[in-house]
Amino acid sequence: MIIKELSDIQELNVTVANSTKTTVKWLITKEDGARYNATRHFKIQPGGQIGIHQHPEDHHIFVLQGHATFMDDKGNKKEVKPTDIIYIPPNEPHGIMNDGKEPFIFLCIIPYL
Amino acid sequence: MIIKELSDIQELNVTVANSTKTTVKWLITKEDGARYNATRHFKIQPGGQIGIHQHPEDHHIFVLQGHATFMDDKGNKKEVKPTDIIYIPPNEPHGIMNDGKEPFIFLCIIPYL
Repeated sequence: MIIKELSDIQELNVTVANSTKTTVKWLITKEDGARYNATRHFKIQPGGQIGIHQHPEDHHIFVLQGHATFMDDKGNKKEVKPTDIIYIPPNEPHGIMNDGKEPFIFLCIIPYL
Repeated sequence: MIIKELSDIQELNVTVANSTKTTVKWLITKEDGARYNATRHFKIQPGGQIGIHQHPEDHHIFVLQGHATFMDDKGNKKEVKPTDIIYIPPNEPHGIMNDGKEPFIFLCIIPYL
């Protein structure tokens, strides 16, 4: 059993997919022996975003704090709030925009394919 | 993209592993098209527990609310708090006891093997 504190985990800038004002903490990864998936903790500051992108991995997302808008590549938009759950299937374009006034924080689980 | 509200998801009693006062909501599953893993939301009421058990699936756990004690089969115990992260490797015995005064709530990701 491995137990970690969130504050001990390094916070990294996210620059992929034209992302801005976004950081990530990789909570559980291969380095912990996890072979099936990784659990990450993202924070998007107000006015920041993760640009629309896609990849073969799916996403399980759980909103911890704040509000934001999820987007696809067809102009569809949907607002989310704390405790909302989002599933992004493999290869589906997705992006997130923090148009709120507080940090938008969420967990995102991604498989090791 | 599938977006759900936590309050819309059915809450089920957990009875495996001599569990007591414990419920689960399956947030994202195969029924959503998720082929790699499932994300669950557990709640253990004060005085409740999930008994010590083991299985080939690993667990990625993130504490959302409350305090509890994680246990193994060798008498080791460790207290956890909100935002703590726990990794349970495959086949490792583990149990959780809510010895606190408020519900203990956590996310637990499990792979589809």
